[in-house]
Amino acid sequence: MLIGQKIIFSYKGQEYAGTYISSGKNTITVKLGSGYNITVDASSIEIKKEYSMEKGDKPGAETKNSGCGENGVCILTTGGTIASSVDYTTGAVKPVKDISYLYNFVNNISQFKLYHESIDNILSENVNAEKWVQFARKARDAMKKGNSVIIFHGTDTMQYSASALSFMFEEQTEPIIFTGSQRSSDRPSSDAFLNIEGSIHFASTDMGEVGIAMHTDTSDDSISLYRATRARKMHTSSRDAFKSISEPPLGLYADGKVKEIKNIRHKSDSIILKDRLDKNIGLIYFYPGMAEEDFYNLSYNKKAVIIMGTGLGHTSTGIIDVIRKLSRETHFFMTSQCIYGNVNMNVYSTGRELIDAGVIPLQNMLAETAMVKAMYLSANYPDNFVELMQKNLRGEFEDTVK
Amino acid sequence: MLIGQKIIFSYKGQEYAGTYISSGKNTITVKLGSGYNITVDASSIEIKKEYSMEKGDKPGAETKNSGCGENGVCILTTGGTIASSVDYTTGAVKPVKDISYLYNFVNNISQFKLYHESIDNILSENVNAEKWVQFARKARDAMKKGNSVIIFHGTDTMQYSASALSFMFEEQTEPIIFTGSQRSSDRPSSDAFLNIEGSIHFASTDMGEVGIAMHTDTSDDSISLYRATRARKMHTSSRDAFKSISEPPLGLYADGKVKEIKNIRHKSDSIILKDRLDKNIGLIYFYPGMAEEDFYNLSYNKKAVIIMGTGLGHTSTGIIDVIRKLSRETHFFMTSQCIYGNVNMNVYSTGRELIDAGVIPLQNMLAETAMVKAMYLSANYPDNFVELMQKNLRGEFEDTVK
Repeated sequence: MLIGQKIIFSYKGQEYAGTYISSGKNTITVKLGSGYNITVDASSIEIKKEYSMEKGDKPGAETKNSGCGENGVCILTTGGTIASSVDYTTGAVKPVKDISYLYNFVNNISQFKLYHESIDNILSENVNAEKWVQFARKARDAMKKGNSVIIFHGTDTMQYSASALSFMFEEQTEPIIFTGSQRSSDRPSSDAFLNIEGSIHFASTDMGEVGIAMHTDTSDDSISLYRATRARKMHTSSRDAFKSISEPPLGLYADGKVKEIKNIRHKSDSIILKDRLDKNIGLIYFYPGMAEEDFYNLSYNKKAVIIMGTGLGHTSTGIIDVIRKLSRETHFFMTSQCIYGNVNMNVYSTGRELIDAGVIPLQNMLAETAMVKAMYLSANYPDNFVELMQKNLRGEFEDTVK
Repeated sequence: MLIGQKIIFSYKGQEYAGTYISSGKNTITVKLGSGYNITVDASSIEIKKEYSMEKGDKPGAETKNSGCGENGVCILTTGGTIASSVDYTTGAVKPVKDISYLYNFVNNISQFKLYHESIDNILSENVNAEKWVQFARKARDAMKKGNSVIIFHGTDTMQYSASALSFMFEEQTEPIIFTGSQRSSDRPSSDAFLNIEGSIHFASTDMGEVGIAMHTDTSDDSISLYRATRARKMHTSSRDAFKSISEPPLGLYADGKVKEIKNIRHKSDSIILKDRLDKNIGLIYFYPGMAEEDFYNLSYNKKAVIIMGTGLGHTSTGIIDVIRKLSRETHFFMTSQCIYGNVNMNVYSTGRELIDAGVIPLQNMLAETAMVKAMYLSANYPDNFVELMQKNLRGEFEDTVK
């Protein structure tokens, strides 16, 4: 039986309709209409009907890994769980190369011309600046042919990659939507299919920035669109792991359509891609009793360091002394390990001393976003680096401190 | 007029009742019954009545900084916003030494015998292992005299300090409740008074562990009790900044009483305090493109390192190679920068490689809690360190991975 084949079968007196996913030694796994999988003893079932997909479920173009044509939706796959399957011997998840079978499980996509190009097969914990440049160039090439862009990506570092492309594209002619899944597509109640469906619909709006589209909550009802620079993975395993931090989501997809989209940047007439990144940027999580020597070693010779301070943006007095010594050579910026809320370094004496030592507060910018922003600015705008770090470029913080 | 003096006055034709807080150049600030402050032109008001506190509002014992007597509630102040006031010249917050005036604004405490001892005056970002030992010894001394203990502490690092005492006290005869405030007591709508009120009531239960008591939400209605090892400051400035991570709160105080308390450890007959801590423990936040050299330098010669990995507990392949080299000398433990949810290193190949390199997963333990736990175990149980890190000692993680 082919993966994606639709079947109707009876098992223990009850009839089931679904889509064939995989076979074990003596078992067969079928994805039911509810979204949940059922695995049953293969010898105990009676197949009533086997049939191919109805025409209406198929996307309106070639979906194999044959590169992206023109004026459609170009899906660039980079690896990650959304393009993985379970190895039923070990229970482990492994990447797969051909993802075209996924479309068989996705609803409401018959009106779209979908293309697919596999541009990498990497676990997202291994993605780095070189990969961001590669992904951005591929997205540019796809947009040049009139396509909107969806990037399948591992969820671990999706927020970093999406932020990187958000800064690198100063202008873009089409939406670029990152999506992924928390559970692989052949697992019970995978979130992959609805994430793909929502992403395709968001990619067909007039948004001209980079977003992340993932489950709104733990049910299988809707997809939220988050600004790349504001999204953060806030749960290790839940379907609704991604949250928009200190800003409402930008859009909602439910019941087969984009129900809401707001506060977005709109499409430009041209593409401006800055594809240089400075890798010499550090990110330091401060904690009580942190050794000054450790802070020094991590900061020394860096172009810039993003500090994840406590509360409103603080470190111990000993660390302030280290910063004072290094701040002629290294730019220090403050974010908060609280995740939510603004840093404000004018409230307490520690904050004022940090400012005096050369630390620049970054309002409610996420630390991860700040790091990526510094990599982009340091490489492309070295003369205005510090000034531009404090300017809202891609909705990465609120202009007015509350 | 004395701070804490109750007054009734009319201003622009309306009558107000409240408690005098402070005077500006030509102004007077009064805390109204609603919890909000009003600041008015001192020459435009007509004072109708000035009167001292009614007897019922006063705590049942001496509240000045005169040390803790017997069989009451011993409030140990260490500094922080809850024991601070606004400098109206600069707008900055400064610590104050005498906090006894605070009680004038706290309701429902007449039945308690309250003592106060100032044991430090430190901003919590400067608290370290030496301070935790000092605070723990003071708490022990107070419990020996039959007192329950409340510790006023800055909110920045309160979760670290509370976790530290939670591990150091293997047995305790009374509750130890940490509290603080996000806005100082002389600011409009300070959260200090209700936090103090709730803490005193939680300190009078039969809980035999360390908790944090702070606002449940942004209104001034209730106080939640969180397990020390599960609490995390999740907002830089909101009253309800503290949340219990991956576990429901332990208790609720509202309408003048403890309405709910559950899943707590109960009082012991004796006190066992282990007051040694190993400071040679590191905490590393992994990020895409993190230099292997930085990870090496931070880990080298450490007794143990807590990693805040991505997703289910991952790092890049390059970092795994560094860990493999160092793991004979240094113990590596994995937590997740997602904050919520379990690490699970059996799902993906990266997790299995990290385990093979010597990394030990810590379920849904918070990174901050894991660091403090390692400091306690390494100093007191060096022979069973790794085994005990994986054992649930103070409710710091769930025994069953979900």
